[in-house]
Amino acid sequence: MTQAIHNFSAGPCILPPSVLSQASQAVHDLDGMGLSLIEISHRSKAFVDIMEEARSLVRSELNLPGRYEVLFLQGGASLGFLTAAMNFIPEGGSMDYAVTGTWAKKALKEAKRIGGAQALSSSEETGFDRIPALPSSSAADFVHITTNNTIYGTQYGADPVIDTPMVADMSSDIFSRPVDIEKYACIYAGAQKNMGPAGTVLYIYDTERIGKTGRDIPSYLDLAVHADKDSMFNTPPVFAVYTSMLTLRWLKDNGGVEGARDRNAAKAACIYGEIDRNPLFNGFADPGSRSVMNATFTAADDAHTSAFLAACDEAGISGIKGHRSVGGFRASMYNALPLASVEVLVEVMREFERTRG
Amino acid sequence: MTQAIHNFSAGPCILPPSVLSQASQAVHDLDGMGLSLIEISHRSKAFVDIMEEARSLVRSELNLPGRYEVLFLQGGASLGFLTAAMNFIPEGGSMDYAVTGTWAKKALKEAKRIGGAQALSSSEETGFDRIPALPSSSAADFVHITTNNTIYGTQYGADPVIDTPMVADMSSDIFSRPVDIEKYACIYAGAQKNMGPAGTVLYIYDTERIGKTGRDIPSYLDLAVHADKDSMFNTPPVFAVYTSMLTLRWLKDNGGVEGARDRNAAKAACIYGEIDRNPLFNGFADPGSRSVMNATFTAADDAHTSAFLAACDEAGISGIKGHRSVGGFRASMYNALPLASVEVLVEVMREFERTRG
Repeated sequence: MTQAIHNFSAGPCILPPSVLSQASQAVHDLDGMGLSLIEISHRSKAFVDIMEEARSLVRSELNLPGRYEVLFLQGGASLGFLTAAMNFIPEGGSMDYAVTGTWAKKALKEAKRIGGAQALSSSEETGFDRIPALPSSSAADFVHITTNNTIYGTQYGADPVIDTPMVADMSSDIFSRPVDIEKYACIYAGAQKNMGPAGTVLYIYDTERIGKTGRDIPSYLDLAVHADKDSMFNTPPVFAVYTSMLTLRWLKDNGGVEGARDRNAAKAACIYGEIDRNPLFNGFADPGSRSVMNATFTAADDAHTSAFLAACDEAGISGIKGHRSVGGFRASMYNALPLASVEVLVEVMREFERTRG
Repeated sequence: MTQAIHNFSAGPCILPPSVLSQASQAVHDLDGMGLSLIEISHRSKAFVDIMEEARSLVRSELNLPGRYEVLFLQGGASLGFLTAAMNFIPEGGSMDYAVTGTWAKKALKEAKRIGGAQALSSSEETGFDRIPALPSSSAADFVHITTNNTIYGTQYGADPVIDTPMVADMSSDIFSRPVDIEKYACIYAGAQKNMGPAGTVLYIYDTERIGKTGRDIPSYLDLAVHADKDSMFNTPPVFAVYTSMLTLRWLKDNGGVEGARDRNAAKAACIYGEIDRNPLFNGFADPGSRSVMNATFTAADDAHTSAFLAACDEAGISGIKGHRSVGGFRASMYNALPLASVEVLVEVMREFERTRG
């Protein structure tokens, strides 16, 4: 019998088995059409329906007011850094950036090319081990946050309380819990964590806050251009949109973002409980800033690191090695990861304590 | 028995059945790993090997000199219009654009935002029914061409003879024939015709001609930034790159671009022969500019148009309706379309003549 694999990869990452199976079937034959999903026109009724269902599921699952637009584009959050800055920072205006990790720094770097972007706060001095508190308001037009920091395993515990409208990179925790959407002028998120495969990036934005920069924006970077064409300004990334739609259907069928929040809380309690209890391991992130998506921890004795990685490997645990910036281990527990996989990891940690402690 | 479908879609379009079958399998389980292609890290050896094989196949199949770089990015040719202009038009320099259709016009429009871009020639007055001859040289730093125009069914019959280095959008005819690469400073091409599924765009460029604009380029739009990270500056569109790699393997196993050229010539001879012979149909493009990829034609009597579309539908011919700019019919015959499908179309045209002529 083949051993089960427990996929803790930081992204691209685990997706629901039913989604993988339907996506595989659609590449062979889409809904009995006799044609593959990837060889039909994106203007065909079959694909237009897919795109519309994907956009509609984002609206319903995040409970979006009608004035919010939903787009599935390309270029990942890395192009999103530029796109968000271009579409929201007014000429002569500004966006404040909360610098909570590598990706937040990159977002600020791209925005600085546009002008009007500056750091609001940073936890770089403590190795990005925490999320600094935000002020209750900012003099800037917008505040940019990175809601979850995969590398360091830190996350805002809830939507920040701040008067200034926010622009948020939610690549690694979108759909993991409900969002108070009215606080956000724009949310963008690469698909490859909780939403689908790599290759598409979701934009959600308040149509009342866009088109006010006074800036000439190149067509592909102009969100309004894409909205005007119902997210089909050019050929969309068909497979990534389809598979995201399937994952959103799965989310809906499994209690929506509330269900995801509860399951994610249970998984986080399981792993952090063990990290805090087991003397052989230390948590990396400050407890008040711990991420429900990515738990980062190290071996109390660094000589144990490679042995623990080997023990994980033997148990079918995949993708547990920490990012080089932090070292040690990282358990990424995105929406599709079952609690049972976290329990297997915890059991390996306990067994490690029994044999090496 | 299910009727065979003859897929003449203009793009996304037909891909080799063996490629669709392998891509479908990889979404289920990649090479027996027990994990899907789309749930593994893009930094894993399995995916790094896929990216490197894809880049290497582009090099070998197009016989690229070592100084040419190969990248698989996102955003399609629509973002390529901006990227090409930003990376090649020097501050104070210029690029001349041959305006041969809708996509060429869009390329020029995006480049004009950068400055230094102007039309060199245009066939808009005659409805883009031909490719105007290029001069033997241009005073500009580069000349931009769109090698094949899907909507109008026109194509440069060979690499233009011109002293000025060219930048070419080859989205709809790359890998359809050999290319005299030394004439090109840069080639870019959306994958979704001859290379793979929608969701990735190929860039090939001469490293000796890049980085000379004197312009600050945002990271995602800077080809050198991507090259420095081996085309993994950010998470690549994993599925689209993998499936492109499979299509390139198929191309290699089937005689490479020379084999494709010969098969495409046979298909084009078959359809254009019938268009010229059959009194019920008229070719749209000027015969000297006819595309081997997309044959555009109309019914001599417009009252026959819908009846012919119905006859095609009955014969299992899909995607034959012409673009609204031209009307009538368009037979897109990309690399993966077998001659047998063109023969079925020709037989429907003959039968149409017998019953309606």
